[in-house]
Amino acid sequence: ETPTEFDIAEAEDFVRQHHAENPDLGKVEARLAEVHAEIAATGTYRHTTAELTFGARVAWRNSARCIGRLYWRSLKVRDLREVSEPADVARECVEHLRVATNGGKIRPVISVFAPEEPGSPAPRILNEQIVRYAAYRGKDGGVMGDARNLALTEEALRNGWQPPAERGPFDVLPVMVRTEGRKSCLVDLPPDAVLEVPLSHPELDWLEKLGVRWHAVPAISNMRMRIGGIDYPSAPFNGWYMGTEIGARNLADHDRYDLLPYIGKRMGLDTSSEQTLWRDRALVELNRAVLHSFAQAGVTITDHHTESQRFLTHLKKEEAAGRSCPADWSWIVPPVSGGITPVYHRYYDSEELLPNFFPSTPGTCPVQH
Amino acid sequence: ETPTEFDIAEAEDFVRQHHAENPDLGKVEARLAEVHAEIAATGTYRHTTAELTFGARVAWRNSARCIGRLYWRSLKVRDLREVSEPADVARECVEHLRVATNGGKIRPVISVFAPEEPGSPAPRILNEQIVRYAAYRGKDGGVMGDARNLALTEEALRNGWQPPAERGPFDVLPVMVRTEGRKSCLVDLPPDAVLEVPLSHPELDWLEKLGVRWHAVPAISNMRMRIGGIDYPSAPFNGWYMGTEIGARNLADHDRYDLLPYIGKRMGLDTSSEQTLWRDRALVELNRAVLHSFAQAGVTITDHHTESQRFLTHLKKEEAAGRSCPADWSWIVPPVSGGITPVYHRYYDSEELLPNFFPSTPGTCPVQH
Ligand code: HEM
Ligand code: HEM
Repeated sequence: ETPTEFDIAEAEDFVRQHHAENPDLGKVEARLAEVHAEIAATGTYRHTTAELTFGARVAWRNSARCIGRLYWRSLKVRDLREVSEPADVARECVEHLRVATNGGKIRPVISVFAPEEPGSPAPRILNEQIVRYAAYRGKDGGVMGDARNLALTEEALRNGWQPPAERGPFDVLPVMVRTEGRKSCLVDLPPDAVLEVPLSHPELDWLEKLGVRWHAVPAISNMRMRIGGIDYPSAPFNGWYMGTEIGARNLADHDRYDLLPYIGKRMGLDTSSEQTLWRDRALVELNRAVLHSFAQAGVTITDHHTESQRFLTHLKKEEAAGRSCPADWSWIVPPVSGGITPVYHRYYDSEELLPNFFPSTPGTCPVQH
Repeated sequence: ETPTEFDIAEAEDFVRQHHAENPDLGKVEARLAEVHAEIAATGTYRHTTAELTFGARVAWRNSARCIGRLYWRSLKVRDLREVSEPADVARECVEHLRVATNGGKIRPVISVFAPEEPGSPAPRILNEQIVRYAAYRGKDGGVMGDARNLALTEEALRNGWQPPAERGPFDVLPVMVRTEGRKSCLVDLPPDAVLEVPLSHPELDWLEKLGVRWHAVPAISNMRMRIGGIDYPSAPFNGWYMGTEIGARNLADHDRYDLLPYIGKRMGLDTSSEQTLWRDRALVELNRAVLHSFAQAGVTITDHHTESQRFLTHLKKEEAAGRSCPADWSWIVPPVSGGITPVYHRYYDSEELLPNFFPSTPGTCPVQH
């Protein structure tokens, strides 16, 4: 295998951007000279704490698929670059959840672990998100749990994970971390680190009895953050949920929990014809349940109407700052009632800016659209 | 102005495609020689009836924004290339409506009028669709009718159109046709040529009393059809409606009839917070009303779930025929409940194929997204 060439131009661009957006940092030349010298000597360079914080926030700001970018400056950056042992990484993921959960008042947080360095591969988190529900295939071929995590669950079992004595549809998987060429390390998430919200509905009383729930913190843990030429393959980050992620995808997709046919039936809808729009009605009620339950539990969540408006505010602010704001229409437009959200009725910039987040495996998109 | 160069390669490609997909037509060389000679002599060529029919159907098949392409072979092609006088074009638009309406069993139809030819400009239909509702600006700045048609209504009034003595929100505009450099010609649509469906709801009885209605035939009349290098600027075509076009766009968009706030209030929903998803609930009920009313009136309509499934069938068929099927994700995914339709969860080919339909003014999209 050929050794990876360090992209010096990317490092330079980043350092210049950092200084350009923060004039109080003074002249950029001294820092550029340092970076050049360090790359020449070691094959890479180390970000200052300020660079890491700025870089992570801008990686968020540049995430074309994210509708939640208005608050990009508020991202809390945990500098854990000294942490590289898989067991330590897993333990810090637990701590990440505690910091982010904050008793329900969710805080956007990123934990940055050891970067890829010449001769020392970085640890990688196998979970797509820190909190994932297991999936078990039954004898009849059916699946209990989140079918999206079938492979992850098998990996956990292969590595010695003990599922609960009584398996259920919402068993939290352990965090799994691996460094190239070594065995995976598994750490169970302590129940008190995983805030969950039981689903109920403002009017449909039977919904509560289904035992459906979801976790409070969406922390994507398998994307690679790239800042100024340096790859951080383990840099889990979280915001708070937009309701549709749970109500229109996680709990609704055919290959996830697929709840709509059941909810439609329980609502007494005529499911014999598509023209009754029973799917759409069940979908709206499921999404109402999600927003209602999070609000009841005092856990931060946003709805797709509010978030669309916020995103337009963000676009205006970015424009006022003289920056382009790339956005991917098919990800920004919500999966429920897309046509009546204001983000539907316009085009967006489409170039790809750096720093940014990328799929773990180049060319693979972790969340299929 | 420089004379338009005829694109002989495009003509050739088309003639070859026509023969390739219809082997019974025999060898292509004779027809190619004819076309070459005709272009050399006259600066253009004339499609055979078979070519026109095939070309129009393939223009539909290649419409990347259209979810309804499964039935592309069924398009009825009215060859009206001899018709170029504006008044005659307008009258044939009336006839188009009658043929397409078919007592409610809507037929996909295209009427092809005189093409652009060297030295004789083609007539152009000013209406975006054959049937359009007028919009009147009130003294308070508010708009009655379909605000999208404010400019068209002004144009009609300027050209002598007499609106009804008592103006209403659903006054049908005349068909307006113009040939470059000449005065517009206006022809009123006879009421019996415009089938309309009054809106009612299976449960919400008050909805019927609002007097909301919509026309049965969506006939886009301002797109340019291009076949084998020849432009047909007047070639109105229609399918039947997909319910969301009416229920999620025409009657719901802020800058159209904007009915959701009113419907939400009449439904007694809590409109004080977005988190109640009152918009989504009103939207679903409005769309149920559309599908219900068309069904009651015996007028063909399709819902977005059924149509998404059909479109996937179409993709499979095209693939089996060895053809690529370009599709524009943001137009194919319905504006209601996008995430739970199967067309959401995939990518599409994106090249642009010919023959095809184009915005009337190059670079302008008649239907803004
Ligand atoms: C603060 C509240 C936030 C909200 C409401 C929000 C909302 C969203 C939504 C709805 C998506 C689409 C998810 C999907 O369809 O699967 C998304 C994607 C994304 N967001 Fe955010 N986000 C937030 C915070 C953040 C933060 C803190 C970061 C990074 C520091 C971030 C980076 C991203 C990225 C990289 C994606 C694309 C993920 C992928 O490709 O799978 N977001 N966001
Ligand atoms: C037979 C039933 C049909 C259905 C259900 C159907 C459905 C649709 C829908 C839902 C759209 C999107 C409209 C919008 O968002 O504004 C569309 C666009 C389109 N359809 Fe179809 N369609 C049908 C027939 C046809 C026919 C017969 C043609 C042409 C011969 C056609 C050509 C197009 C074109 C060119 C567009 C894009 C229009 C634009 O750019 O504004 N469709 N269709």
